[in-house]
Amino acid sequence: LVTLYIGFALTLPERALIANIRRRAGSGQGSRLSRGIGDDCAVLRLPQKHEALLTTDFSLEGIHFRREWHPPEAVGHRCLTRGLSDIAAMGGEPRTAFLSLALPRGLPNSWVNRFFDGFLRLARQFHVPLAGGDIAESPSGVLADIVVLGSVPAGKSILRSGARPGDRIYVTGELGASSAALAQLFSGGKRRLRPADYPRHFFPVPRLAVGQFLREEGMASSMIDTSDGLSTDLAHICEESGVGARLEAGLVPRAVVARSKTPVDIRLALHGGEDYELLFTARPKKRIPGRIKGVRVTEIGVITHGRRMELVGPEGKVEGLEPMGWQHFGK
Amino acid sequence: LVTLYIGFALTLPERALIANIRRRAGSGQGSRLSRGIGDDCAVLRLPQKHEALLTTDFSLEGIHFRREWHPPEAVGHRCLTRGLSDIAAMGGEPRTAFLSLALPRGLPNSWVNRFFDGFLRLARQFHVPLAGGDIAESPSGVLADIVVLGSVPAGKSILRSGARPGDRIYVTGELGASSAALAQLFSGGKRRLRPADYPRHFFPVPRLAVGQFLREEGMASSMIDTSDGLSTDLAHICEESGVGARLEAGLVPRAVVARSKTPVDIRLALHGGEDYELLFTARPKKRIPGRIKGVRVTEIGVITHGRRMELVGPEGKVEGLEPMGWQHFGK
Repeated sequence: LVTLYIGFALTLPERALIANIRRRAGSGQGSRLSRGIGDDCAVLRLPQKHEALLTTDFSLEGIHFRREWHPPEAVGHRCLTRGLSDIAAMGGEPRTAFLSLALPRGLPNSWVNRFFDGFLRLARQFHVPLAGGDIAESPSGVLADIVVLGSVPAGKSILRSGARPGDRIYVTGELGASSAALAQLFSGGKRRLRPADYPRHFFPVPRLAVGQFLREEGMASSMIDTSDGLSTDLAHICEESGVGARLEAGLVPRAVVARSKTPVDIRLALHGGEDYELLFTARPKKRIPGRIKGVRVTEIGVITHGRRMELVGPEGKVEGLEPMGWQHFGK
Repeated sequence: LVTLYIGFALTLPERALIANIRRRAGSGQGSRLSRGIGDDCAVLRLPQKHEALLTTDFSLEGIHFRREWHPPEAVGHRCLTRGLSDIAAMGGEPRTAFLSLALPRGLPNSWVNRFFDGFLRLARQFHVPLAGGDIAESPSGVLADIVVLGSVPAGKSILRSGARPGDRIYVTGELGASSAALAQLFSGGKRRLRPADYPRHFFPVPRLAVGQFLREEGMASSMIDTSDGLSTDLAHICEESGVGARLEAGLVPRAVVARSKTPVDIRLALHGGEDYELLFTARPKKRIPGRIKGVRVTEIGVITHGRRMELVGPEGKVEGLEPMGWQHFGK
């Protein structure tokens, strides 16, 4: 599966790299994985009466991260979180991960090792073996594409399309922490931030336990993760469900970051991406706990008829809410 | 699943692109695909008592193709072939494809449309719906990562690790056609080749029917596709099976390309990659047809004890055979 692309000059380092990945990934492989790295495909057995879930997400240097801003462990961790969070948003269980990784010539070995430190630490935490992928030379920068294969009891996925007018809108955790870090980085004041000050930006943990709980309890009518930002991800639910939404600005849980005493600006909480929280809806009669698996859950609005998204401001003023996902690291 | 990465400036074209892909991909979706493009994950049901097969492969501009050499249709076609051929090499059936695609700013829409023309034509031919993926801005050049999910009756995959001393070695089709095109392109004589002169380079068709036949008939003890070149792919079988191999140079089927009357140089047939033929072994008592599903099958050598690969020359002279996969398009 790890297809070895051999230029004459690359044979040895690529082989050594694959042998190294294979050795390190091997320890995490579960019994359901018949074949891992070292064949044309990975071979996997899914639980009976389960459906497969599959998601792919790029992590591209200069677009999704910058090497001068993000420690290699954070790049590896965030890469896997992107995939795991999509599984969480379906209420699913992750089974295996696959990583396509293209590396530019001259990248230090230590960078790659630290990338895998971050990646494999998160993989072990959620018992997700790295079962294969592809290794190639990159024409420019580090290029990663994460694939996560998961499963869910047949017919039980929580889709984006299940919201109905009258459903309440909920979100886990707090929003805006990740984009607050971005805002700092873009402002250029500091070239590096301390990851400990912005854990939700550098080492976001996917909400798998919450997603599975909501699916098992039949609580959520629709769900998505907040990878693109609340306004954009809510727009996806509205579009797929054919509904509108009204958010209460004052209810949106805003993160408190670094040594600040006040929460982040409401615009970061509304539009900032990459918090990897869960945004879901539930029928009005469902009682949704204020805390699930140790994670805060907040009601922030209601699904409406029509296709319009609205934001209710502090003094009851209603304005239109446009999807404005936070920009990435592009030029 | 198609995660919409929105920079403010990118919102409209990316949305339009995803809507376009969705519309075009929709027509090919089979009944086993519960959810396609438009959710956090694709949801798929596999046949009962089947195992999942999964493979991922990069197609990176400047590494695996060049825009000035390869028409967009060929880039799309070859991208999908890379994934389908890995499924063929396990004896499996492809179920769905996923495409992560990063596009540089300023890439003409027509290039993207023609890429999908080539990609989706091949997808339809093999009844493989495009079920999702990721779209992003590329920091440099067109970056594609293909994921194919397939399935195979449990325990019936043909692995690289099943070869035993005494097994005969077979290959489908002819070898060296794809690298002969590369050699022409690298020589700089012609900036563009006519795809009709080098169909195995520009539009290689994966050997899915042959792979499935070999699995159903229990004929092959090990198998791999010749994506890296015969010498390198045979080395993978030897390594995974813990065996050696002896090839007869005179038996290796060499392709005849363009308007040439003679077959390609033996070095292209031995080391040239990207022919996407099947290389397999079979126990000595198995009768292997000379043609399977319309494709020529040739016996080219024997699996030996030890780990050494040898090549028997025209006058019986035996020399060591080193894995020397053909180089890609790197600088």
